[in-house]
Amino acid sequence: MALKVGIYGGSGYAGAELVRLLSGHPKVSVMEVASRGYAGQDIRSVYPHLAVEGEYAGPDGIDASSLDVAFVAYGHGESAETVRDLLSAGVGLVVDLSADFRLPDADLYGEWYGEHPVPELLAEVHYGLPEVFGAAKGRIVANPGCYPTAAILALAPVVKQMGAGIRSVTINALSGVSGAGAKPSVKTHFVSANENANAYGAPRHRHTPEIEAMLRRVEGGAGTPEITFVPHLIPITRGELETIVVDAEEIPDAEEVLGWYAEDYAGWAFVEAREEYPHIAHVANTNRCRLSAAVDRRAGKLLLFSAVDNLLKGASGAAVQNMNLALGFGEDLGLEHLK
Amino acid sequence: MALKVGIYGGSGYAGAELVRLLSGHPKVSVMEVASRGYAGQDIRSVYPHLAVEGEYAGPDGIDASSLDVAFVAYGHGESAETVRDLLSAGVGLVVDLSADFRLPDADLYGEWYGEHPVPELLAEVHYGLPEVFGAAKGRIVANPGCYPTAAILALAPVVKQMGAGIRSVTINALSGVSGAGAKPSVKTHFVSANENANAYGAPRHRHTPEIEAMLRRVEGGAGTPEITFVPHLIPITRGELETIVVDAEEIPDAEEVLGWYAEDYAGWAFVEAREEYPHIAHVANTNRCRLSAAVDRRAGKLLLFSAVDNLLKGASGAAVQNMNLALGFGEDLGLEHLK
Amino acid sequence: MALKVGIYGGSGYAGAELVRLLSGHPKVSVMEVASRGYAGQDIRSVYPHLAVEGEYAGPDGIDASSLDVAFVAYGHGESAETVRDLLSAGVGLVVDLSADFRLPDADLYGEWYGEHPVPELLAEVHYGLPEVFGAAKGRIVANPGCYPTAAILALAPVVKQMGAGIRSVTINALSGVSGAGAKPSVKTHFVSANENANAYGAPRHRHTPEIEAMLRRVEGGAGTPEITFVPHLIPITRGELETIVVDAEEIPDAEEVLGWYAEDYAGWAFVEAREEYPHIAHVANTNRCRLSAAVDRRAGKLLLFSAVDNLLKGASGAAVQNMNLALGFGEDLGLEHLK
Amino acid sequence: MALKVGIYGGSGYAGAELVRLLSGHPKVSVMEVASRGYAGQDIRSVYPHLAVEGEYAGPDGIDASSLDVAFVAYGHGESAETVRDLLSAGVGLVVDLSADFRLPDADLYGEWYGEHPVPELLAEVHYGLPEVFGAAKGRIVANPGCYPTAAILALAPVVKQMGAGIRSVTINALSGVSGAGAKPSVKTHFVSANENANAYGAPRHRHTPEIEAMLRRVEGGAGTPEITFVPHLIPITRGELETIVVDAEEIPDAEEVLGWYAEDYAGWAFVEAREEYPHIAHVANTNRCRLSAAVDRRAGKLLLFSAVDNLLKGASGAAVQNMNLALGFGEDLGLEHLK
Repeated sequence: MALKVGIYGGSGYAGAELVRLLSGHPKVSVMEVASRGYAGQDIRSVYPHLAVEGEYAGPDGIDASSLDVAFVAYGHGESAETVRDLLSAGVGLVVDLSADFRLPDADLYGEWYGEHPVPELLAEVHYGLPEVFGAAKGRIVANPGCYPTAAILALAPVVKQMGAGIRSVTINALSGVSGAGAKPSVKTHFVSANENANAYGAPRHRHTPEIEAMLRRVEGGAGTPEITFVPHLIPITRGELETIVVDAEEIPDAEEVLGWYAEDYAGWAFVEAREEYPHIAHVANTNRCRLSAAVDRRAGKLLLFSAVDNLLKGASGAAVQNMNLALGFGEDLGLEHLK
Repeated sequence: MALKVGIYGGSGYAGAELVRLLSGHPKVSVMEVASRGYAGQDIRSVYPHLAVEGEYAGPDGIDASSLDVAFVAYGHGESAETVRDLLSAGVGLVVDLSADFRLPDADLYGEWYGEHPVPELLAEVHYGLPEVFGAAKGRIVANPGCYPTAAILALAPVVKQMGAGIRSVTINALSGVSGAGAKPSVKTHFVSANENANAYGAPRHRHTPEIEAMLRRVEGGAGTPEITFVPHLIPITRGELETIVVDAEEIPDAEEVLGWYAEDYAGWAFVEAREEYPHIAHVANTNRCRLSAAVDRRAGKLLLFSAVDNLLKGASGAAVQNMNLALGFGEDLGLEHLK
Repeated sequence: MALKVGIYGGSGYAGAELVRLLSGHPKVSVMEVASRGYAGQDIRSVYPHLAVEGEYAGPDGIDASSLDVAFVAYGHGESAETVRDLLSAGVGLVVDLSADFRLPDADLYGEWYGEHPVPELLAEVHYGLPEVFGAAKGRIVANPGCYPTAAILALAPVVKQMGAGIRSVTINALSGVSGAGAKPSVKTHFVSANENANAYGAPRHRHTPEIEAMLRRVEGGAGTPEITFVPHLIPITRGELETIVVDAEEIPDAEEVLGWYAEDYAGWAFVEAREEYPHIAHVANTNRCRLSAAVDRRAGKLLLFSAVDNLLKGASGAAVQNMNLALGFGEDLGLEHLK
Repeated sequence: MALKVGIYGGSGYAGAELVRLLSGHPKVSVMEVASRGYAGQDIRSVYPHLAVEGEYAGPDGIDASSLDVAFVAYGHGESAETVRDLLSAGVGLVVDLSADFRLPDADLYGEWYGEHPVPELLAEVHYGLPEVFGAAKGRIVANPGCYPTAAILALAPVVKQMGAGIRSVTINALSGVSGAGAKPSVKTHFVSANENANAYGAPRHRHTPEIEAMLRRVEGGAGTPEITFVPHLIPITRGELETIVVDAEEIPDAEEVLGWYAEDYAGWAFVEAREEYPHIAHVANTNRCRLSAAVDRRAGKLLLFSAVDNLLKGASGAAVQNMNLALGFGEDLGLEHLK
């Protein structure tokens, strides 16, 4: 199989990672890259670290009808209509990296993002966290948010086992600055972000309902309570670490939780639980998620730890993994060096 | 008044900050600096950024009987006997930056650190967080831990108002690498710490009982529950940020909490609450603590934010502030540029 | 003396440092701060680390006729006319932090920057590097560029002694990102600058003619050759380090060069030569310049090293020092903690 | 071909990179890793980012006679005898990453490092910079130093063309902290290295004679003058950038120099010259060398720029590339994702 793939939004950080990964993917024979802001410019003039030839097309500069797979890496609200148009043009598989298809229904979407542009498509979306929800299928894969990826991988096995006993969940997250996007701003200026750290977005960060909704889909998770989610910006380029505090009637031992992880993620290439608390440096520049658990017996709390690279397992690495699974390849095809 | 001060442990980071601050303090006429590891070496050969002349003395190289004030910046367990000897030699005021005198009784100390070397002195210790417990008095000031400083300043007014209604407290803390001390190790190697972040020490970090014990001394705080405290190392040189999640029967509005802070800290130079969440960069290289509050109504939680520079308000700046108050000076004498 | 000072361009990094320094200066009783982009906004909403009250005025919102001293921190080409207007309004002393008055004549300015807006004022400018050219006098002080400050302090004593024997001078400079200014851009985005370093601006960086022109004013320096100047951006917030390679007929010993420095800078508070090579961390957050020298006998070259904080000795600290000297105060008034 | 490889010194940074690269190399079937300091410890307990199973062997714990290829990543002076013993045991190819076999004769080695441990082997060493000196051959490959790699790739084509016309060469180098090795020390402590930069080792850094000796081997390079080499430490994890200033009778245009590079490096996968000055971020985490050139006509100097990742093209990536070439594989086998 020789795939022709298109990347929409190829000049953002997630887009640039897609370019890097797909240009080395053994099944991809043609890759076209569109950018609204950089159309006509050499890709390497924008990202000189990429070893690719060619220019950015404008969004309409790609013949969509010729594509086997399309990746859309626009911002939320800007992506849904492009996805619809790509499907109309006959693209067989669209992996959407925006938030537009992550929430299960238009009402919830409306509450957090505004009116959904194409609600009629929501019913056929597959939420692309394969280690929890299985291999992607259908035409639309909603690539999970970076924070939800780390959170759901840590919490799904716990929710499955502890279910209704869970009284509250608090997620404290740390993110590198690439998570704030490529657009220059005061907060992403080196002088602002360096030697600094701060909470932001809390208590209404838009990844909160995504985490809640997906945990409620897990077996036994219907009663998952509202989650307190507090993200922080820290001065690193890439990577995320979540420290999750679970309050429950009965707190299991840490070893037991590590056992749940081992069982649920057996056979999956990129998720691994270890006794050692995960460091961001253990997962940066890889497609891994690393998990751990500990118990605070004095205060009666379960602590979970989860780390991912926000641009790989939290975005573009997962997107390629989703494509692989949807097309029946091994999940790590073209990602072997990121295990 | 022309003070003669001695610094014991002057080659660690807290000690070097004491040297810097006290060499510019208008009431200090003589400063002697001891170091166990660097005795006989020029201070500036160890810390070339310090604009001081002179050598490190050995610990016995200072005539303690001539000192008005001594600062002891040794590790826990190593400090208490030096403090006892300094008092015996007639030093009028000892500010101890170790953990040796921070816990209220020898039993609790024993549980977390081991047998207390000089339990007979514990009764006369003043815990040096003046904005909560008043100006230092007596001969021994226990300078608070860096994490407890940020935590207690954020929590004391809340405990005072919400008291028994508090069901649980979770503290998520971020610290710069200077908090790990000056001794080279794998974890403090630039290549280990840079582009990284990780939880450590949880769920039994030794600052936990200090926070609990001191909150239980606050009016209405006797029933403060056991606290979950999870510190993280982040790649910055100095500064700490705590995000504190309080679960309680009734959650007040954020404005009300900001009002408690404004009232309790009125007239104190270094503690300030603002609507904007504190950034570490707002307090780094200052003696400030900056506070804020928010409410997560969906999940029913109160969020508190607190930032300090671990080497200043979290250590040496507070130590000088404590000396100032104990001797009847303005709290900010010699610290005006750190407000 | 109770001074009324005005700061124009108070929302850039140099402006914010001026606000910080002048708000603690003992002779300043009134400080007004103007910003073109942030007029009407609370200063602390833009720079929350500043402990000042008040709003930015618009550029015309300050009654210039009431000012004793004005600081202008605009970009080159934007500053000269403001300086002229301030003088016309009767301001007694204007310290200009732009490049507009640093070059000695309008022709040279034209070659590197374009037509000079107010060439008639050039004759009365004092170039404000007091350790080389003496205390500021007259109405206009041109505050030196950050790179020229480090370069001229290292080279002036050498030029004085070695004069016509110097065959070539190459300056390799490293600068923190604050040197690129507060305006967000791709190059100052944290993700671009972090874990990176690159040469830029060479071989025609505009600080080159400033260094050459000022060295040619030094006794014996008339024949100073054209200089190769290559600046690099490195991922730190503040500070600059220059490594200068001098090729000459006869290369003195390093000790001799250190002796020239000691002699020329005796009595000045902020410039010091030491055997140890200067680190940026030795001068960051201070108004210092630290110098050193070494000799490569194999290749026959003299190496000079010079470090400053680009926002302090390289900009706002020097500006306050220049004001102090122009008004007859001690050079370190209000800057004592930056020595 | 299924290779059995051994890594000696597998717990340093270069060793850990070798483990990472060789564990994904398609021709390597067995990999044994020795460490003097960590023998018996799980490799992943030391480097949790490595996705390998197994323990470090002691240096004698590997049956050398079974190895096809050995990599030795010890410090200088510690490597040569191990290399000799491996050859005696019948290992067909030894790639030595130390300095022990980089200098062409024992006298020069003695001048900079001390007496050579096994001078009799020097005659059969191949200096492993294939883009300049061709594919590795024989039993011993001396893997070039990181600084010499960047320097010689930039200078060899220039020396070939400009030869005797070159009057002087000054190399200003910037290096990430991984270049200082994995051993914790004051200078590699995060707090020392962060927000800092400093020159070190000049004017007698031991990479200087390596650069000179190898350039003198280049056609036309016999008269290459002594070089001034000034390395600096900057706060990044990996990567090196060299800015090289060449003084010569006649200075060519930059385009001409870029043409020499294009011609000399045509067909090589990892070396590329571009008009844009190289950034460290363009080569970090790759096996690339990126080059550029500019001319300072005012001062009459040629400027060359060269960037590599010190742990990949400057060490372990080059070592695998050398193995590939020595065994007749494509130079990029197992390194495809590092192009």
